[in-house]
Amino acid sequence: MTHQPLPPGSTLGILGGGQLGRMLSQAASRLGFDVIVLDPQPDCPAARVSKRQITAAYDDAEALLALGQASDVVTFEFENVPARSVELLEQGGALVAPGARALAIAQDRVEEKTFLNSVGATTADFAAITTVADLAPALETLGLPALLKTRREGYDGKGQVWIRDAADAEAAFASIGQRPAVLEAAARFTRELSVIAARGHDGSLAVYPFGENSHENSILKTTIAPASVDDGTQARAVQIATAILNGLDYVGVIGIELFDMGGGQLLVNEIAPRVHNTGHWTQDGCACDQFEQHIRAITGWPLGSAEAHSRIEMTNLLGEEVNQWPTLAADPSAHLHLYGKHDIRSGRKMAHVNRVLGRL
Amino acid sequence: MTHQPLPPGSTLGILGGGQLGRMLSQAASRLGFDVIVLDPQPDCPAARVSKRQITAAYDDAEALLALGQASDVVTFEFENVPARSVELLEQGGALVAPGARALAIAQDRVEEKTFLNSVGATTADFAAITTVADLAPALETLGLPALLKTRREGYDGKGQVWIRDAADAEAAFASIGQRPAVLEAAARFTRELSVIAARGHDGSLAVYPFGENSHENSILKTTIAPASVDDGTQARAVQIATAILNGLDYVGVIGIELFDMGGGQLLVNEIAPRVHNTGHWTQDGCACDQFEQHIRAITGWPLGSAEAHSRIEMTNLLGEEVNQWPTLAADPSAHLHLYGKHDIRSGRKMAHVNRVLGRL
Repeated sequence: MTHQPLPPGSTLGILGGGQLGRMLSQAASRLGFDVIVLDPQPDCPAARVSKRQITAAYDDAEALLALGQASDVVTFEFENVPARSVELLEQGGALVAPGARALAIAQDRVEEKTFLNSVGATTADFAAITTVADLAPALETLGLPALLKTRREGYDGKGQVWIRDAADAEAAFASIGQRPAVLEAAARFTRELSVIAARGHDGSLAVYPFGENSHENSILKTTIAPASVDDGTQARAVQIATAILNGLDYVGVIGIELFDMGGGQLLVNEIAPRVHNTGHWTQDGCACDQFEQHIRAITGWPLGSAEAHSRIEMTNLLGEEVNQWPTLAADPSAHLHLYGKHDIRSGRKMAHVNRVLGRL
Repeated sequence: MTHQPLPPGSTLGILGGGQLGRMLSQAASRLGFDVIVLDPQPDCPAARVSKRQITAAYDDAEALLALGQASDVVTFEFENVPARSVELLEQGGALVAPGARALAIAQDRVEEKTFLNSVGATTADFAAITTVADLAPALETLGLPALLKTRREGYDGKGQVWIRDAADAEAAFASIGQRPAVLEAAARFTRELSVIAARGHDGSLAVYPFGENSHENSILKTTIAPASVDDGTQARAVQIATAILNGLDYVGVIGIELFDMGGGQLLVNEIAPRVHNTGHWTQDGCACDQFEQHIRAITGWPLGSAEAHSRIEMTNLLGEEVNQWPTLAADPSAHLHLYGKHDIRSGRKMAHVNRVLGRL
């Protein structure tokens, strides 16, 4: 692609029609773009705010060709897009952003960690686990406890298990289906941080201030941003984000989860090649939020400012918690963002609320 | 309607699918509502961000019944909705907000001015003009120049003409098609202001700070808000808005155009029973913008705060001016809002830009 920005009226394709696709579509429409969503679930949340839905599986060749033909650029709300799907989209004539390389790396935890360390974005120590025989020597090196995760797929704590005793290793491996895995040394962090960053087609960069995250049952509960960090740590985050984005020749928004190890040391936990739940605070904290930023990046527009104007506490509303909406609607400091999901299921991300803690 | 708020997942109907309908729909979807748009133009701007469009004329009985049946509440982006259409919507089972009375009054300039003066919201002096014979005595009373406007319809300067010489009166009346009209005394104002206000089902009120407006060729060009006014004038605006909203038993957002006559005197120019172009600044100046505020009002949610956090200059981009988007996209103080209109026509409202002048 040249760096010529796509004019308003162009069509964007989005793979995945959940809340991330929905908020991407809303941002795109504010900039005058039309959006087509591909999702297997009819009447998905993103479709109801978009021009059109193609209802099909993510690997449906005909549907992907059609989406590619109808779209000037295609992006996605999740990272587990098969490489073959990207090829089909490109055959349909669309640019795909972020590209195949970023996807491939983010889909495999061993590839991901290897890449991260190669660009100086240090991770916890790790070992690839292919068979049960790999576990004992890996535990020897990494120590206990250690975290076993499938190499591919898995999110919100799915497909991962702690090994606290070497005797439990085999059972742990069985519990994740004996799939190819990665064993990670426990990171004794003081807190979990994340950085949302973006890179344009022209290599320009925008890095948002840190979010400080807390999880419940491995699902993100709150993000407070901008988090209090010293200047050195913020500078280190910019350095890490820059190394990752340039290393991947990345286009779009990326979410980088970090462990603050204290003493100015940061370890990268994982990267997500898409808009990220820990970046939802930007909707009410920044002039240009992560969704608009992603749309700007993939369409070749100049990136927006990543500066924060307000300090925000973002809280996910999971399952029945969404029923708190009447109280939240009456609170002038609370900005409610509801996803239009009709079925309330336990643990399902239904909405989030951004609470303004103060103006900056 | 009881004051029970409509839960997220409810369906809102919007009559009219231009930019106002589009921005209403975007606000509604952020709160988890589904939106159906009725507009005669297929693939209208609002439809492309909504769940569904009913493509039909605004007086199509079958279509209005269907919209009413599918919607929990119906609203509109323009005021010239026939009374019969409101009846049909209500027959379909939907609540219509704002209601029939507000519409009827806003549709007829003589009714409107009579109502306004009756609730203490002073207007310029005026006279109803039914036949050409009414002009001479009216001009005698009101003086020259005077502004002749059709009683019904007409916007952005359409259907109105200045009479600067009594000899031109007959030609002026002919130029507006000899339709029933109102003749207004010239208001020698120092500036044009507007106030956006909202009223909920429970009678609660929210009044935004003043916008100061400038027009070019009778079309709004810029609004700067909050405008600098003394406390007495702001208090007077709240008084006027309250009188109008309560007088109409109004539900929703209203736009009130005012003439600042100096010395603390305000005259009401006209009211628009809908979200208003002079309220677009609230999108980037207030925690709760006029679009979300309207959705909150008509769904029975608590009203949001009308406080401004930033001072904004809103500029309409008309016709070819929309081609300035690449420059504006590169300006971090500029928030672009594009309407998704595919055909650029001279004078057509294509987009607006909110420029942040400062934080408050």
